[in-house]
Amino acid sequence: MLKTEAFIRIRYGEVDQMGFLYYGNYALMYEVARAEMIRDSGYAYSQMEKDGTVMPVVKMNAKFLKPARYDELIKVETTILELLAHPFITFHHKIFNEAGDLIHKADVTLTFYNPLTEKRVPMPERLRKLLEPYFIDAP
Amino acid sequence: MLKTEAFIRIRYGEVDQMGFLYYGNYALMYEVARAEMIRDSGYAYSQMEKDGTVMPVVKMNAKFLKPARYDELIKVETTILELLAHPFITFHHKIFNEAGDLIHKADVTLTFYNPLTEKRVPMPERLRKLLEPYFIDAP
Amino acid sequence: MLKTEAFIRIRYGEVDQMGFLYYGNYALMYEVARAEMIRDSGYAYSQMEKDGTVMPVVKMNAKFLKPARYDELIKVETTILELLAHPFITFHHKIFNEAGDLIHKADVTLTFYNPLTEKRVPMPERLRKLLEPYFIDAP
Amino acid sequence: MLKTEAFIRIRYGEVDQMGFLYYGNYALMYEVARAEMIRDSGYAYSQMEKDGTVMPVVKMNAKFLKPARYDELIKVETTILELLAHPFITFHHKIFNEAGDLIHKADVTLTFYNPLTEKRVPMPERLRKLLEPYFIDAP
Repeated sequence: MLKTEAFIRIRYGEVDQMGFLYYGNYALMYEVARAEMIRDSGYAYSQMEKDGTVMPVVKMNAKFLKPARYDELIKVETTILELLAHPFITFHHKIFNEAGDLIHKADVTLTFYNPLTEKRVPMPERLRKLLEPYFIDAP
Repeated sequence: MLKTEAFIRIRYGEVDQMGFLYYGNYALMYEVARAEMIRDSGYAYSQMEKDGTVMPVVKMNAKFLKPARYDELIKVETTILELLAHPFITFHHKIFNEAGDLIHKADVTLTFYNPLTEKRVPMPERLRKLLEPYFIDAP
Repeated sequence: MLKTEAFIRIRYGEVDQMGFLYYGNYALMYEVARAEMIRDSGYAYSQMEKDGTVMPVVKMNAKFLKPARYDELIKVETTILELLAHPFITFHHKIFNEAGDLIHKADVTLTFYNPLTEKRVPMPERLRKLLEPYFIDAP
Repeated sequence: MLKTEAFIRIRYGEVDQMGFLYYGNYALMYEVARAEMIRDSGYAYSQMEKDGTVMPVVKMNAKFLKPARYDELIKVETTILELLAHPFITFHHKIFNEAGDLIHKADVTLTFYNPLTEKRVPMPERLRKLLEPYFIDAP
């Protein structure tokens, strides 16, 4: 299991006239959290794209429990539960507001994709090697 | 059952560097489609807000089957399957590209909410009366 | 001189908690207006990109006179005053609200650019030929 | 004179299919930079709004010198040159990429506004007192 935390401050342009983070903008929060997680592993996603693999989202399930508001510093807790052999990876996100309340949950599944061949590919070897140590169970 | 179609052209600022509609921006497409559906009923959502009821999203499930690309005129097919007594409403969206391929599916559940009392409320009577005729089964 | 009108409805996700179209989102309105103008000429910008020329913005000046609000159907009046020999083109935008008030003015200058050579290029011949008739002065 | 620096990482959802930060999204960068500057003064903008003063943008001039790209950590240098008696304030922004190149310049003028009276107001006293020390010239 791999678990990280990212802290993100909500911008004015991301909030709607209810004063809530617009529901479509949570996707930016997941993106920042998973990009930081992948960067922390030692292989930034931006480099992975230069190396020829992109990661389109294929599935997203989200529950909005409480609103996030302008200027709040939210915490995005991100977990990968398992490394799978097939070309998909799922990030589980829990978002907490400054008061510590769980305000949002989402599971986002991405695939690995080669834009030249237009085919799905396995996770790049370089990323797999960096992530594997987190998924080895103690005997 | 109530079913409508909205046609939306993908903007440059909505597409990412893969050349795909950014996954968070599908939320704008659902929003346009359900706002047009509600407007067509005779009671625009903007008026409902002025009358004191807002509609925050509480749940969203989405499947990304194929990418939508810059400048494509997508079709968003939106269905409400049932009018329920509790303060939730679910919109089912299917998105088709210009070639007619089903590229995306999403279910978005919203609640009715009074921002002054900070409580969920039933669907406004005015909207319910406008929508009900679509849900009366023939004998 | 070439002059067109585009009508755009303001989305919920584009408005901030003041209830105003977020100041950064006017860029989307200019984009829609100039893309429709170019498409109307007979050569869509999306096709121009496929043909190898992109158009990055190099300068933008904007005045915000009155707010645009959620659900308003704004009118974006767009004018090109002259076709120049150098690789720049300026679009002049005036935005009107539903009441007919002038609410916004902006001048946006773009350049023509070849992403492969990473150099500025003149306006593509195909676009020039389509636009030229609008700029021939009567004797 | 007051001068601050903010560092912001470009998100995937903010970049267009040229691979450049979308021209409308620079507005988010200015917003983050000026919000941090105001917060650093000791009076967060979010608090100012709760106290009854909002700050709509009235003018924006921008020059795009070089593109900003996905995942770059840009530096936004922000300067206020003078505190004026009238209800306007101008922020001067210079943006640098990771290589240290100046890639963007913008001047953004905002006004102070009371949404209840719908009138422009002077800078709130509390903010003025916090900013004034930066603008006292040595004799």
